[in-house]
Amino acid sequence: MRSESSQPLSLHSIRVTDPFWAREIGLIRQAVIPYQWNALNDQIPDAAPSWWAHNMRAAARAVAAKKAGKLFIPAHHSDRIETLPEEGKKPQEDAFYGFVFQDSDGYKWLEAVSYQLMAKPDSALQAQAQKAVDMICAAQEEDGYLDTYYTLTGRERAFTYLRDHHELYCFGHLVEAAVAWHQATGKDDLLNAARRFGECISSKYGPDKERGCPGHEIAEMALMRMYEETGEEQWRDLAKFFLDVRGTEPSTFAQEENRRRAAKGLPELPVSAERYEYYQANMPVRDMKEAVGHAVRQMYLCSGMADEARLCDDAEMEAACDRLWQSVVREKLYITGGVGATHVGEAFSRPFDLPNDTAYSETCAAIGLAFFARRMLQLKPQSSYADVMEQALYNTVLAGMALDGQSFFYVNPLEAVPAACETDARLSHVKPVRQKWFGCACCPPNIARIVSSLGQYIVTQTKDTLYFHLYIGSDLTVNLGGTSMSLRMEADLLKNGDVRISVADGQAVGTLAFRDPAWAGNAQVKIPAGVKSWSENGYLYAKGIWKQGDQITIHFTMPVKALKASPLVKETMGQVCFTRGPLVFCAEEADNGKNLHLLRVLPDQVAEAREKTMLIDGMTLPAMTLPGRRLKEPAANAPLYMPWTPAETEETEITLIPYFAWNNRGKGEMRVWLAE
Amino acid sequence: MRSESSQPLSLHSIRVTDPFWAREIGLIRQAVIPYQWNALNDQIPDAAPSWWAHNMRAAARAVAAKKAGKLFIPAHHSDRIETLPEEGKKPQEDAFYGFVFQDSDGYKWLEAVSYQLMAKPDSALQAQAQKAVDMICAAQEEDGYLDTYYTLTGRERAFTYLRDHHELYCFGHLVEAAVAWHQATGKDDLLNAARRFGECISSKYGPDKERGCPGHEIAEMALMRMYEETGEEQWRDLAKFFLDVRGTEPSTFAQEENRRRAAKGLPELPVSAERYEYYQANMPVRDMKEAVGHAVRQMYLCSGMADEARLCDDAEMEAACDRLWQSVVREKLYITGGVGATHVGEAFSRPFDLPNDTAYSETCAAIGLAFFARRMLQLKPQSSYADVMEQALYNTVLAGMALDGQSFFYVNPLEAVPAACETDARLSHVKPVRQKWFGCACCPPNIARIVSSLGQYIVTQTKDTLYFHLYIGSDLTVNLGGTSMSLRMEADLLKNGDVRISVADGQAVGTLAFRDPAWAGNAQVKIPAGVKSWSENGYLYAKGIWKQGDQITIHFTMPVKALKASPLVKETMGQVCFTRGPLVFCAEEADNGKNLHLLRVLPDQVAEAREKTMLIDGMTLPAMTLPGRRLKEPAANAPLYMPWTPAETEETEITLIPYFAWNNRGKGEMRVWLAE
Repeated sequence: MRSESSQPLSLHSIRVTDPFWAREIGLIRQAVIPYQWNALNDQIPDAAPSWWAHNMRAAARAVAAKKAGKLFIPAHHSDRIETLPEEGKKPQEDAFYGFVFQDSDGYKWLEAVSYQLMAKPDSALQAQAQKAVDMICAAQEEDGYLDTYYTLTGRERAFTYLRDHHELYCFGHLVEAAVAWHQATGKDDLLNAARRFGECISSKYGPDKERGCPGHEIAEMALMRMYEETGEEQWRDLAKFFLDVRGTEPSTFAQEENRRRAAKGLPELPVSAERYEYYQANMPVRDMKEAVGHAVRQMYLCSGMADEARLCDDAEMEAACDRLWQSVVREKLYITGGVGATHVGEAFSRPFDLPNDTAYSETCAAIGLAFFARRMLQLKPQSSYADVMEQALYNTVLAGMALDGQSFFYVNPLEAVPAACETDARLSHVKPVRQKWFGCACCPPNIARIVSSLGQYIVTQTKDTLYFHLYIGSDLTVNLGGTSMSLRMEADLLKNGDVRISVADGQAVGTLAFRDPAWAGNAQVKIPAGVKSWSENGYLYAKGIWKQGDQITIHFTMPVKALKASPLVKETMGQVCFTRGPLVFCAEEADNGKNLHLLRVLPDQVAEAREKTMLIDGMTLPAMTLPGRRLKEPAANAPLYMPWTPAETEETEITLIPYFAWNNRGKGEMRVWLAE
Repeated sequence: MRSESSQPLSLHSIRVTDPFWAREIGLIRQAVIPYQWNALNDQIPDAAPSWWAHNMRAAARAVAAKKAGKLFIPAHHSDRIETLPEEGKKPQEDAFYGFVFQDSDGYKWLEAVSYQLMAKPDSALQAQAQKAVDMICAAQEEDGYLDTYYTLTGRERAFTYLRDHHELYCFGHLVEAAVAWHQATGKDDLLNAARRFGECISSKYGPDKERGCPGHEIAEMALMRMYEETGEEQWRDLAKFFLDVRGTEPSTFAQEENRRRAAKGLPELPVSAERYEYYQANMPVRDMKEAVGHAVRQMYLCSGMADEARLCDDAEMEAACDRLWQSVVREKLYITGGVGATHVGEAFSRPFDLPNDTAYSETCAAIGLAFFARRMLQLKPQSSYADVMEQALYNTVLAGMALDGQSFFYVNPLEAVPAACETDARLSHVKPVRQKWFGCACCPPNIARIVSSLGQYIVTQTKDTLYFHLYIGSDLTVNLGGTSMSLRMEADLLKNGDVRISVADGQAVGTLAFRDPAWAGNAQVKIPAGVKSWSENGYLYAKGIWKQGDQITIHFTMPVKALKASPLVKETMGQVCFTRGPLVFCAEEADNGKNLHLLRVLPDQVAEAREKTMLIDGMTLPAMTLPGRRLKEPAANAPLYMPWTPAETEETEITLIPYFAWNNRGKGEMRVWLAE
């Protein structure tokens, strides 16, 4: 392990008190977690069934039958990614239904619940979660195998289709849940299940065994976490193995495909890796220079790579992480912190291709970017990582969920015209309103788990330094240099840039480091006398003896800013985006009428922006008005083309609200980038 | 028939002499027609086979076998739109291959050849065409049925799938070819084949028989043409029947689908018409207000409707044509004269949705627009129809073919970045270079037939008025008011707006009407003394006695113009297009480097445009240079987003060439709309 690397605090040691974020976390607990439990149990009227509990129970019966020596005959065989009951027929009790990766939904739910339990014990919720844990454990086969799809459709086919059948993805989420559940409750039931499945996987794959790696990454970072939680080096080694096999020749994905083809009498395909870009398996990870393919997978891979770089002190891997980070933030990042510009393959597009209306910008990909950023921060504290992490969290991640926690976006466009999304097949992935649930329900539980574990993004620490990455109000207890103290951070960035950190209890000797956000004007920092301070990589370091009553106050000015994109981004040509603090703002039809593309902003008059607040769905949110102009709408019979003349505009006042709050006042147009 | 409606001249009576267009017509004769003959006969190495001659010969053998009383067993059954030989196996001699509508390729070729023969007799070409005619006639069944797909795959299934199996589309192209062949050679062999197939169709469909209409329109206008050629009213009536059945309830497309479903034991679907928008069969044609669905089909339908309005003096149909025309030109027309903005369904998109990079703008759709425009001109001479016809012909239609006549565009974007088209699945329909041939080879033969028949677009006449719609140099003979005269029009719009029309021979009493193009500055017109003149609907009318030696000279100023689009077109926001005369200009990488979106034009300085000529692939073409600016390219490590500052630009000279000439100097970027 890298000696200077930092760690997030246990969620037992940090409690979010921020007026805005504490509400979000509460919303997850009160609205999202119960809803998702019902979804997992197919108890949501008018929503497609999840089949999670159905599959777990069916698998448990199959496993019990096997243990009892009763022959278990798989219900049906299929290579399809999604299996549904035959039309018009009742579901079969012992059949697997839903996507092949459906098990992961429950794991994500359990992980989020565990985080919530650490923040606030709740015996009823814990009992419900225990039920889920028991269901999972019952579905585990005797040799440790745990994937209801193959248990129910033919165990002999397990591990034959790593590319698309997502066993290792489900395993990764199982591990994440198991570690969180262990941290929350101290119970090792799920951790043991994860260990046993891990042993089963290790018995097949490894340096001196078969080559193979996950089609959808997450096992890499999950295994690293299990290693950190248990100290058992085999999990670190398995993660490293998966990382190092990935993208090497001959491609294991091609080899497994050829085995399936051979079984059908089809000729072999070439085994070169290059066609597996979608899976980030087109070259060894250490050679990667550009973020490509499925964006969530790329971000999960990067997270695992950053973990490896840190836990194996691997400079070559760190260099690959640096290159991929630069590829994302310099060429492929939406200003809203979203990534993955194209819906084709839910993928990264080429550099600087960042369309606003057809954007994919999946909620999960922004979450993955936050995972990656936090891990880069652990590796080396540079404020630019935290800037991007904050950008993703405050904008795309939050936009993924309605203010009431009842509906979700999978796709997060930067420009939406409902009439277009609803009729245009080229925009069919863009929904004009948030949805209740999705067949492929990855985003809502992913929001639940990142928001519930927000404390792990706010600060990280080394032995003697505590880094404040995010200014989110919270109470925390930290051990620095061998002694503990409790700190209170008061902040509310939705209102202003005033931050106060005080020592509530105890004392410690060490360094507190405060990020200087890219969005901030000159910070005014007051630190106690006698504390030595210096700046480095975007952090203000303050080293000294900290004792009860000590206070640091920071005042970040938070001016409204007019931003532009690189001229290489065609889609924002001549357009401006307004931000304040970490928030990106947007124009909505509710405030500005239809045809938002007719608005003209005056970026040189950004100083005239007037900040205000607006009540949106019962929440008081920051907003702003700007002096602007609006192109006159042409007459109904106006010609389509005409001699150029300067645009005829009329004065108007433009109202902007935070991007994350869009589409909470009914269906309407939205636009982040506004024409100059 | 409308008394005041006008007619194009027979191609025997008009010969194009225009320096530019005569070359294009010659190119079709020398390069395109021989190439296409080889394509029809599968004699192009490295191109997918057309299967046309194969299918015709196989069908002829099947027909002969039937006539000889020998049982003919269909080679194979399929509902697929395209049938190919089984992989790795030799094609079966008696099987149908290719698209179900493959017969039409040969008909289009024959039609183009016929036009060429009228312009210039050529016994070798005529003999080749006669061979094709004989092949077609031999494939006709005893009852007149003529469609190799069903003859070879099961005649009992004929007329069961009008929506997608295109028998009536092939019939329409057969009729077009038959009429042209008859006009060119006086021979009625193919016309009789068309009549016999027409009788076969009429015996099934009609007011007191079955309801039905073509899934892909063209039979409507083709039948109207056969009526005009033969005077046989049944063809007009069948066309009118097809038009009036279209889009009525219950949908005949739904009914035939239900018959196919019933045969497979599947339940009935609703029979309402509304879901057939793609086919323009979602409502009765007389109710239509908006151009929708597959763009070529919509344009062919409109052409048939305009013929019906004229030949049946049908004011209600004319009103529908007017509405559809307005829908196209006010809301759905690219400045290049292209239509059909979306590749999804090769279709019209919603009003004002005219993206430049993902544009479909199929060559055939622009050709269809020219068909429609010519027919509206026949109905009522208004220069705005000719403006659009000219816009389509000089820009998108011409762009469809390389300057050497050797390769073709199916899709005509207004912005192309080769690296994007080549890697981005969202742009997979946009080719960065013209292709040799297409599996669905509709566009190259369609270019061949419209360019070869260009004379029919230049002028039309009523009994006593000759309308000059296009200023394309030509020699023509016209009978006005009972006597004939020969006229010579000298013009070369690629150079300038000087037009001279002189009476070369004979004399006549009547009116000559000269269009005042929308692109022209004030026209200076000199007409002989004693001729009465007036202006109406964009035409200058000159009425008098015309005799040998009389001259009309017209000088149109042809300034470079900077145009803008309606502010409702988002994709051209803040962008300008430059035109001169009928030509739209574009910037190419060859002259202006990469990243054309960084160019900034100064539309208020359009007067400073310098006209020049450029040699492109051996042709001297008009071009222009404009003073402009270019955004500085950011440094390699520049941030993606930054505080707004006015764009940093440097002075540059921007070179523009005609849109139609793009991509004749290798692969490179192209852009029609340039940022202000």
